[in-house]
Amino acid sequence: MTHEFVPDVVISRLPWYLQILNHMAKEGLHTVSSSMLADRMGSSAAQVRKDLSFFGEFGKQGTGYSIYLLIDQLQKILNLDQIWQVVIVGVGDLGRALVRYQGFANRGIEIAYVFDNHPNIVGTRVGSFTVRHVNSMVADIRETGIKIAILTVPSDAAQATADCLVEAGIKAILSYAPVALMLPKDIHVQYIDPVLRLQRMMYYLGDN
Amino acid sequence: MTHEFVPDVVISRLPWYLQILNHMAKEGLHTVSSSMLADRMGSSAAQVRKDLSFFGEFGKQGTGYSIYLLIDQLQKILNLDQIWQVVIVGVGDLGRALVRYQGFANRGIEIAYVFDNHPNIVGTRVGSFTVRHVNSMVADIRETGIKIAILTVPSDAAQATADCLVEAGIKAILSYAPVALMLPKDIHVQYIDPVLRLQRMMYYLGDN
Repeated sequence: MTHEFVPDVVISRLPWYLQILNHMAKEGLHTVSSSMLADRMGSSAAQVRKDLSFFGEFGKQGTGYSIYLLIDQLQKILNLDQIWQVVIVGVGDLGRALVRYQGFANRGIEIAYVFDNHPNIVGTRVGSFTVRHVNSMVADIRETGIKIAILTVPSDAAQATADCLVEAGIKAILSYAPVALMLPKDIHVQYIDPVLRLQRMMYYLGDN
Repeated sequence: MTHEFVPDVVISRLPWYLQILNHMAKEGLHTVSSSMLADRMGSSAAQVRKDLSFFGEFGKQGTGYSIYLLIDQLQKILNLDQIWQVVIVGVGDLGRALVRYQGFANRGIEIAYVFDNHPNIVGTRVGSFTVRHVNSMVADIRETGIKIAILTVPSDAAQATADCLVEAGIKAILSYAPVALMLPKDIHVQYIDPVLRLQRMMYYLGDN
């Protein structure tokens, strides 16, 4: 399978398919039609078939997709047949919520280290972690070869922290700081900003 | 201006343009070229021009866009020339982080009520709010006519809570619960799930 020409918007939907399929498997289903998947995705059956066709022939006309086969294939495509270690940088309310979040463990993600720079926070326990000082961050990441970081520092510290992470060898950053990071082209960045998502819906709500 | 045929993927980028333009205005800039915008967006100048062309002629060949004019227009398009009240349902770590989040106020969003159902949480203060019991949620929302909710309840409570919100008149839900909600077609739903964003990047990271 070559994935070189798969549009990023298709890639962005694959984790979502995987999650829905895992729910369906838990519900005891074995096969699923493209229209059932489309219903849960809020898209169309044609869209589902087109998305999945990038990665080979998963389904059969009339019988639908094998849920287990599709889960297995999607996990391979997304490189989820391994555990990915991540670091969390910034232990405010949000960082704390993420450290305690139960949804990582069974979905291929393991928190390895948690960093902050505040003397009142460094050395404290959050969940099962002791918060480390950012001074050791570059060395810690280099030593372990971790590639993924979650950035939950204040906006005005985000760029400098991201620069350090890149220096340490991080290749993918999930940032909660509402600022656009300027980073080398080979670094993957995703932003989570509730305001952008809310504003997007406001377009459709029209005048209040 | 008619916006009926604007693809949702374009709409999803408008809040992001607005945010970048606001930063540029703070930096003291007055005009911006499509390629400067593209740089900060991580897209192309052609993409920027195409996105903005849906909403009229903002820029002039050679001189770029007026930042203030563009901010003003984007705010109108996104219905941000008013304050939108929201409710937050679920006061765990994440709900607490959102209640205290400083980024809503100056971006058109105001938290009106915060709800939970746990006796240890209902009645406590979080930030400047007293947590209300979900029993009063439907009545509170109906009375105020609020249209937007942020859902931070556990996964197994998400669907039932969303159903109540819709019954109360909510039209847009930002859900942090990692489950697909089944709701009427006229309800707008956005999901924030850090795992989906991380998995999307793992596709590009290849084998560890």
